[in-house]
Amino acid sequence: MNDTVAVEATHTGQLFSVQILHFEDKDGRRYTREVVRHPGAVLVLPVLEDGKIVMIRNFRVAVDERLWELPAGKLEPDEAPQRAAERELQEETGYCAAAVRKLGEFYTSPGFSDELMHVYLAEQLTPVQRALEPGEDIQVQCVDSDEAVAMALDGRIRDGKTIAGLLMWHAADGSR
Amino acid sequence: MNDTVAVEATHTGQLFSVQILHFEDKDGRRYTREVVRHPGAVLVLPVLEDGKIVMIRNFRVAVDERLWELPAGKLEPDEAPQRAAERELQEETGYCAAAVRKLGEFYTSPGFSDELMHVYLAEQLTPVQRALEPGEDIQVQCVDSDEAVAMALDGRIRDGKTIAGLLMWHAADGSR
Repeated sequence: MNDTVAVEATHTGQLFSVQILHFEDKDGRRYTREVVRHPGAVLVLPVLEDGKIVMIRNFRVAVDERLWELPAGKLEPDEAPQRAAERELQEETGYCAAAVRKLGEFYTSPGFSDELMHVYLAEQLTPVQRALEPGEDIQVQCVDSDEAVAMALDGRIRDGKTIAGLLMWHAADGSR
Repeated sequence: MNDTVAVEATHTGQLFSVQILHFEDKDGRRYTREVVRHPGAVLVLPVLEDGKIVMIRNFRVAVDERLWELPAGKLEPDEAPQRAAERELQEETGYCAAAVRKLGEFYTSPGFSDELMHVYLAEQLTPVQRALEPGEDIQVQCVDSDEAVAMALDGRIRDGKTIAGLLMWHAADGSR
């Protein structure tokens, strides 16, 4: 790949920052790429004893819509992804999981962002206390796993990470 | 949802812009959300007559890795998504499709971005001329559909939109 000529910081915020990277290709042509620097995040697929999936209906100001999602959230500084998964599961749904294992990881939008999403399966759930953060507007709803997969295919689920996480689990073996 | 009190623009770039939205909840507590405003994008799942999928290995500066992906790209101003899908397929892989149909759409990372990804299946492919944009570093590689699904599950594919698109198609009916 070509060398980076310069890095310019344009936005430094609470959740992410933005850099403009300047490159020069082998023919001397210069071009730039804008990049969001993100701390990374976790996605949790919580499965109850009866096979239902604990989903949330999350109002997202970025898209001005309430979306069907799996519980998720960004990593806190120095936080291990599995710890973040356990924390977000409890904060957003009020469940605590005795069995948590990693299903995979992916970049949500590597064309402009380095956000890496760590995906966890959470089982052996017990109800505890929810603890939403300021500004969070989240409703919990449990959904049959077959229905959740159908929702990922027919357009009712419009969140890419939730589609990917559900279908990874379904295709691997989990829901059958 | 709570009312927006103010909108502040912090970054205006070639690909996206960033806004800080200021809110006040029903108890008078103020909070902010940072949002990436993105023009939207397309993802193309190109299937050859022999069942192989036309994939790309794309160097992504945002994550400093070469990723396995399906062809994709952002919408040009006023461009219809299906037209963008046909254009990106040709530019990145050198194939033209006689049959293109929509499989679905999703937000890639609605926690901080409004990027909407339109997903198309492209069939009846004929080779034409590739036309990479400046700075694009893309290799074309055709992959058996069963192998592509396996790659989405075992961690070889690290691009979320590609995992979602492949598994939507696989779960719906396409690859079986």
